[in-house]
Amino acid sequence: MTTGPARHRAEPAQPLGGVIPVAPTAFTDDGALDLASQRRMTDFLVDAGSDAICILANWSEQFALADAERDAVMDAVLGHATGRVPIVVTTSHFATRVAAERARRAQQAGAAALMIMAPYHGATIRASEDATFAFFAEVGAAVDIPIVVQDAPMSGMVMSAGLLIRMARDIPNVRLFKLENADAADKTRALLAGASDHIDGAWDGEESITLIADLEARVTGTMPGAVIPEILGEVMRRWATDDRDGATTLFERWLPLLNWENKHMGLQAAKVLMHEGGIIASEAVRAPLAAVSRDLRDGYVRLARRLDPLILRWSRG
Amino acid sequence: MTTGPARHRAEPAQPLGGVIPVAPTAFTDDGALDLASQRRMTDFLVDAGSDAICILANWSEQFALADAERDAVMDAVLGHATGRVPIVVTTSHFATRVAAERARRAQQAGAAALMIMAPYHGATIRASEDATFAFFAEVGAAVDIPIVVQDAPMSGMVMSAGLLIRMARDIPNVRLFKLENADAADKTRALLAGASDHIDGAWDGEESITLIADLEARVTGTMPGAVIPEILGEVMRRWATDDRDGATTLFERWLPLLNWENKHMGLQAAKVLMHEGGIIASEAVRAPLAAVSRDLRDGYVRLARRLDPLILRWSRG
Repeated sequence: MTTGPARHRAEPAQPLGGVIPVAPTAFTDDGALDLASQRRMTDFLVDAGSDAICILANWSEQFALADAERDAVMDAVLGHATGRVPIVVTTSHFATRVAAERARRAQQAGAAALMIMAPYHGATIRASEDATFAFFAEVGAAVDIPIVVQDAPMSGMVMSAGLLIRMARDIPNVRLFKLENADAADKTRALLAGASDHIDGAWDGEESITLIADLEARVTGTMPGAVIPEILGEVMRRWATDDRDGATTLFERWLPLLNWENKHMGLQAAKVLMHEGGIIASEAVRAPLAAVSRDLRDGYVRLARRLDPLILRWSRG
Repeated sequence: MTTGPARHRAEPAQPLGGVIPVAPTAFTDDGALDLASQRRMTDFLVDAGSDAICILANWSEQFALADAERDAVMDAVLGHATGRVPIVVTTSHFATRVAAERARRAQQAGAAALMIMAPYHGATIRASEDATFAFFAEVGAAVDIPIVVQDAPMSGMVMSAGLLIRMARDIPNVRLFKLENADAADKTRALLAGASDHIDGAWDGEESITLIADLEARVTGTMPGAVIPEILGEVMRRWATDDRDGATTLFERWLPLLNWENKHMGLQAAKVLMHEGGIIASEAVRAPLAAVSRDLRDGYVRLARRLDPLILRWSRG
């Protein structure tokens, strides 16, 4: 079932792929939403050449938001992007019914695609593989835009390649997969071997830290943090034109920054550099999440200044 | 800070305790809220002699509800209870800010107390003990009604006795504790030994399955499923009048029903018997949760019919 004409939707000319950074959720220092900074960050990510932007993901602290705040962020970003770039909206929720309702609202608001994790809650509540399949089938039937299945270790539900293949084959709008686990490269190979005719793209995640191995496994998209989309986009373009050495050289030059994000900064990384670069007003994460130490934060900024990414220069542009 | 006069609040004459069943959230067969059944269940729990009623807990499938649905259930129960019995509202959320806002709204709506878990999300996101303390301190400062700290294995954050003692001593309205872990009895002893002057009650949970050992450790409340409050209330009264043999005999007579709930039925137990007894219209849990097998469900109903609790007779009045 559809929900009427969408507003502001950027219709991709081809299947979504390339560099799709996760936009952080911008807060004030005391933890309130800062939608002005959210819009400014959207402009930066567009200017940095992002092929799409993902909002309300885990790297966006989605788990720290009330439902009304999710809607406020979604409406702010979709209203501001106004078709310049496709927006992927994460609409995960434990309950099938709530996830489907979120999916319908995101489609109506103009999302180009939805990203959804398997249902999970806390340390112990998970669904079986059959119930997980049914969850995606029901949420998929509620919309007609593509669904990106997010295989995320944080959920505590690791989906087997067999389950992903079954979803690709049997659920019409499940045609994109984002694999975040340590075995992303080999799982991508298994997924494509089992259902390539039903798949518009497999992507990696995890700050793009495994991008070269994943490109060798034929991912067509990568979902990093919102730090260096202009660099990762160039890596992807070089790879696509068979300049694998050039892609690898560029990736390895920037790998220390990705590594510091992946191992030390976490979801605060993009916020710190956006704040240093004058894009957003505060680098605060929302309590009870705590900021990384000043030492690690300052070491990250020093490393970034040495490499000089657009995120530090864009605002002076 | 307070939020003005509360509506409908049943002010307990003494600290909350006794039998505080968790009310399930009533759904229709297709998973919509069924507030008429929710109100009828509230009448049953009052008539069964509950000392208080807890809503929106994990046994209420709180993790399967949208924010607006939480509010709808809360308003329906508080509006219908109208001071007949204190209502404990679970207002857990990962984010300090959102949990505080939920707490303020529950106080304003007439909650007698709040129950709150340590912050958690998914398989991997937890807060440190210091951040957990700060979370409860900040949420506690947002209201002036008591907070029941819920130590729940489902959260994946097991709070140490030392942390609980520190919260009891240093956060004014943290004076009640519900311990659900397997070590509830000994943890209760450690908690009372360390902070009894700052504690209005330690309660157990987990379907009251460990009640005798926990009473020996001086719990003053128990939070079971909503199945046999009239029986567990009598157990508590006998114990309070030093009739420990009588309390134990009665508990052991009903233990098979608690055991079947704890080991086989889970949060569906009360729904099944309320449905069999004509109290609620559907025994459905919300997808992706699945119903237990017909065999286990029917075995539970046969066991209940042999013991003949009020839940099966109340509707026939």
